[in-house]
Amino acid sequence: MRKVVYDVAVTVDGFISHEDGSVDGFLMQGEHVADYAERLKGYGAVVMGRKTYEWGYPFGLVPGKRAYPHMAHYIFSKTLRFGEGAEVEVVGGDEIAVLQRLKEGEGPDIYLCGGGAFAGFLLEHDLVDRLVLKVNPIVFGHGIRLFGDSTRKVELALLSATSYANGVSLLRYDVKRAGAA
Amino acid sequence: MRKVVYDVAVTVDGFISHEDGSVDGFLMQGEHVADYAERLKGYGAVVMGRKTYEWGYPFGLVPGKRAYPHMAHYIFSKTLRFGEGAEVEVVGGDEIAVLQRLKEGEGPDIYLCGGGAFAGFLLEHDLVDRLVLKVNPIVFGHGIRLFGDSTRKVELALLSATSYANGVSLLRYDVKRAGAA
Repeated sequence: MRKVVYDVAVTVDGFISHEDGSVDGFLMQGEHVADYAERLKGYGAVVMGRKTYEWGYPFGLVPGKRAYPHMAHYIFSKTLRFGEGAEVEVVGGDEIAVLQRLKEGEGPDIYLCGGGAFAGFLLEHDLVDRLVLKVNPIVFGHGIRLFGDSTRKVELALLSATSYANGVSLLRYDVKRAGAA
Repeated sequence: MRKVVYDVAVTVDGFISHEDGSVDGFLMQGEHVADYAERLKGYGAVVMGRKTYEWGYPFGLVPGKRAYPHMAHYIFSKTLRFGEGAEVEVVGGDEIAVLQRLKEGEGPDIYLCGGGAFAGFLLEHDLVDRLVLKVNPIVFGHGIRLFGDSTRKVELALLSATSYANGVSLLRYDVKRAGAA
């Protein structure tokens, strides 16, 4: 079974961005970025919400194109439409079934790229398998939370904890399944 | 200058307790508890809000007595009153000035015991010097946040990151002062 891995930068107080999606304050340079790029090579597909996909436009992402060329893209949105030749698949319904089929298919792990609302939706449906948290040395005080407005409580199992010279800590966890041993 | 150290257990999504102050889900046994007990010996005074102090009553704390025998206690509350022989000082006003005097006094560092609202109040007045976060392997989804309702954004400098066999990570940070180099 392919794992859904939520690989995301987060503040020590649990925010993944400011309210408007901006991320100033997160460290964008350093060894942790190289390690992140290395991890990306290991994902075979990426799932994300519409806002997260569109967040790439100002940075040069062409609508309908892949943000990560080697991954199959699934953008979850009830409104987004792309024309002929789109390289990404828009999932407009049956989100849970689509995700489950994707997990049961062949291939490397699945990158959950965000955002918080979409991650929370997946968490509430037991569809998040692993967290890779790039804990940045900053307190935002407000913004978009790690799992959006989800109130789901889940236990985790720490896989590894490391830190970088620039102050970023990398915490990796498996999500414990309710009822699992 | 004595440091104010916020030494606190927190979830990966930034909560220090459930809404009612309960903390089920946090790991209460393991090496990290022994290390915490060791750190406590290094604090000369403790500051906390009323609710945090009263939180100790069901666990046997006698009103007016010290929760940590070797520390001077300052309970910040406009309503709390203790009679003769109280071992703790209730600070009912001039909170900032009291804290500043305490920091400028002699002695080991000052333990900021919580809760979130009080920690947020101190953060907003630049009175928190260090964070010692016992990051527990759990997502709460809701509860009392690390700095309560404070929306203050502050940058941190990572001092150390370690982890324990039970899944708790210990992240230590200095709070960067606005305008400091």
